[in-house]
Amino acid sequence: ALEGDDAGLAEVLQDYHASEIAILFERLPSEAHERIINILPTEIASEVISEMDEESHPEELLINLDPEKRSEIVSELDYDDATDLIAQLEEHEQQDLLESMDEEDASSIRALLSYGENTAGGLMNSSLIKVNIRQDKKGALDDIIRQSEEMEEFYTIYVVEDDDTLQGVVSIKNIIKAHADAKISSLLKADPVYVNADVDQEEVARLISQYNLTTIPVVDDHMKLLGRITVDDIIDVMEEESTEDILKFSGVSEDEELSGSWQDAVKSRLPWLVLNLATGFLAAGVVRHFASVQVAIPTIVAYMTIVSGMGGNAATQALAVTVRRISLSDLTDSQAYRTVLKEFSVGLINGAVNGLIVGAFAFVYDGSPMMGVVLFLAMTGNLFIAGLTGATIPLVLKRVGIDPAVASSIIITTFTDCAGFFLPLWFASKFLL
Amino acid sequence: ALEGDDAGLAEVLQDYHASEIAILFERLPSEAHERIINILPTEIASEVISEMDEESHPEELLINLDPEKRSEIVSELDYDDATDLIAQLEEHEQQDLLESMDEEDASSIRALLSYGENTAGGLMNSSLIKVNIRQDKKGALDDIIRQSEEMEEFYTIYVVEDDDTLQGVVSIKNIIKAHADAKISSLLKADPVYVNADVDQEEVARLISQYNLTTIPVVDDHMKLLGRITVDDIIDVMEEESTEDILKFSGVSEDEELSGSWQDAVKSRLPWLVLNLATGFLAAGVVRHFASVQVAIPTIVAYMTIVSGMGGNAATQALAVTVRRISLSDLTDSQAYRTVLKEFSVGLINGAVNGLIVGAFAFVYDGSPMMGVVLFLAMTGNLFIAGLTGATIPLVLKRVGIDPAVASSIIITTFTDCAGFFLPLWFASKFLL
Repeated sequence: ALEGDDAGLAEVLQDYHASEIAILFERLPSEAHERIINILPTEIASEVISEMDEESHPEELLINLDPEKRSEIVSELDYDDATDLIAQLEEHEQQDLLESMDEEDASSIRALLSYGENTAGGLMNSSLIKVNIRQDKKGALDDIIRQSEEMEEFYTIYVVEDDDTLQGVVSIKNIIKAHADAKISSLLKADPVYVNADVDQEEVARLISQYNLTTIPVVDDHMKLLGRITVDDIIDVMEEESTEDILKFSGVSEDEELSGSWQDAVKSRLPWLVLNLATGFLAAGVVRHFASVQVAIPTIVAYMTIVSGMGGNAATQALAVTVRRISLSDLTDSQAYRTVLKEFSVGLINGAVNGLIVGAFAFVYDGSPMMGVVLFLAMTGNLFIAGLTGATIPLVLKRVGIDPAVASSIIITTFTDCAGFFLPLWFASKFLL
Repeated sequence: ALEGDDAGLAEVLQDYHASEIAILFERLPSEAHERIINILPTEIASEVISEMDEESHPEELLINLDPEKRSEIVSELDYDDATDLIAQLEEHEQQDLLESMDEEDASSIRALLSYGENTAGGLMNSSLIKVNIRQDKKGALDDIIRQSEEMEEFYTIYVVEDDDTLQGVVSIKNIIKAHADAKISSLLKADPVYVNADVDQEEVARLISQYNLTTIPVVDDHMKLLGRITVDDIIDVMEEESTEDILKFSGVSEDEELSGSWQDAVKSRLPWLVLNLATGFLAAGVVRHFASVQVAIPTIVAYMTIVSGMGGNAATQALAVTVRRISLSDLTDSQAYRTVLKEFSVGLINGAVNGLIVGAFAFVYDGSPMMGVVLFLAMTGNLFIAGLTGATIPLVLKRVGIDPAVASSIIITTFTDCAGFFLPLWFASKFLL
């Protein structure tokens, strides 16, 4: 349909939801983005732009539009979405755009821009529905309907004092059911869950998930209601955090864009690889130290690679379970202790089983019972170290306030590589030389 | 407070939200769970049980309660939560419990039990608010208020035909604002996003996230409205799926419980380690093949461990980015092609940089320029293979319909281990012997 004229294209597009058009954009060149945005009705166009993946750079599309169309689209956007887009622009582009907007919108967006991108303030939307605690049923309903004109959907109605401090929430159901002369003060549910504007978005996600909320109010230090965060924005945060977790865990900088350029990928991964190279020299030093053993018993080298490789994998297993467990909930001292004890046992048993296999193989294939014993001891020892470090290191990092996910495989496998080389070579030097 | 009497404990507990008590449970022995549940008012007790972590086994707590208390709690539970709990029980316990309940509740739960645990049917709640498409404003409002009596919160009002087929949704705002004689048919929004009951929960999460929904209706093959899934259940699904992804990626069975016993952990991880042992023998075979090289040039062994270790880490990086990208959206052929091309370039460049470092080290430390060349070539080659396999293998698995996450580090590092041993040894045999 992209080959046809604009009218034909417009007709095809109207069957699609804005989020579907945004997904379609990922597969189209950027010239097509601009053309489609210009064809779409402003309301849909602004929704498409707010739904576009960050990695498709909606802010560049926006800045390239005709200024009038751009203003129309920005004023249709929710404040939180507009703020996210504008925050991606260069300083002078931000000023130009804000000056072209109407004063009220611009000042709301300026206020939102002042919060950190990953805080509750950076996530919140300042448009919401609130009623004064002294309102009666009729006045409250009128207020709610008036305020809801500009909103797609409302989930929660906030109750405030004259100075806008948050008092509670009230459900539309209870207002409708109430007697005609009921006061909001008698209908409200006090003590709502709320967050301060400077709270980290991960904590916001945790609260929303724990209390099964659809929205959470955001307040300043004096409990003044600033905005609200809706669960759909939190779902995006959760996806982002999961991506960051899996990347950090694998030794990739958390801010690498999944569909970024090769230059970005090199920039994000090379430092970790160079760090790994440094730890690699350390482990290689262990091997060099036993050069006489490897010349005297050449087969030990092949087995040594098996022992160290198995240690790396067992450590990654223990690490994944422990890191994920920590990220879902804080562990008490006794839970932490039991976790270490468990990984200790798992490492010993898995080590002994695999040690028996590789030991038996050496006995049969190389005809050396003593080599079998050496490998059994080395494998058991290394998988024991794997379990211990895989569980202990993230727990210790968490206690001292460092993100446990930096204990990526790269760090942990340093231990299992060093031990994986040392143990077979050292046992061999004792028992086989 | 656990030491005090029941009255004192009850007083302390009433300051806590049910989800907070559920979290507290993780730190208490199971005798304390039973005591607290018996003290709490039934409404709170049932909320606590529905909020308890799966791994704390709320179903065991439930089955151990006094039968009368148990019936009260189960009838307070939402149908979807009750079904999840009952599904965890033994067949005969399920029957006993269902027979002790009132007939309507039991038959609703029996219907829900028939859906797969990880499908839309297994997630949905059958209690929802619906109005007939031929209702007028007054009748609809009465219906809504009547139906909402039993519900904590309602998000969306569904519009159905006489035979319960889904026609659309209507917002409470539009009903309130409408003229007194308005018909629902003129207020409804047709073509809502919906899911069929047998759709996988991951797909449900994707739809809710894509369309920013707070609830999604679930229908049967004839569009009959069966229930709805709320976004708070989807948040739990997303956490579960993230856990599974990170576990599979690290060579742990996806169903290992994070806080499970050491026996379960051994059962879940040992098969992967034995698989890794088998691939380890393969790589060790490569080393054995070049035994003469390692005896002639002992230092090559230490360097070989560096080359293979770096390959493993680079492959894990490429794999993490690719697997996560696939799990967030389907890639077109051209996107897949560009991904492989990108990892190909990243591998070459990171390989060359690290190859230069290790080559220069060998030149300076071992005084052998030719060893430097061998290591530069081997490192570049292995990181190139790492990028290529890390990107290609998950993409190919996805195309042939296999979960790309089974391309865990264990599988991919087989390639980088074999190549990481072969390349330095083979180049050394050509240039240094």
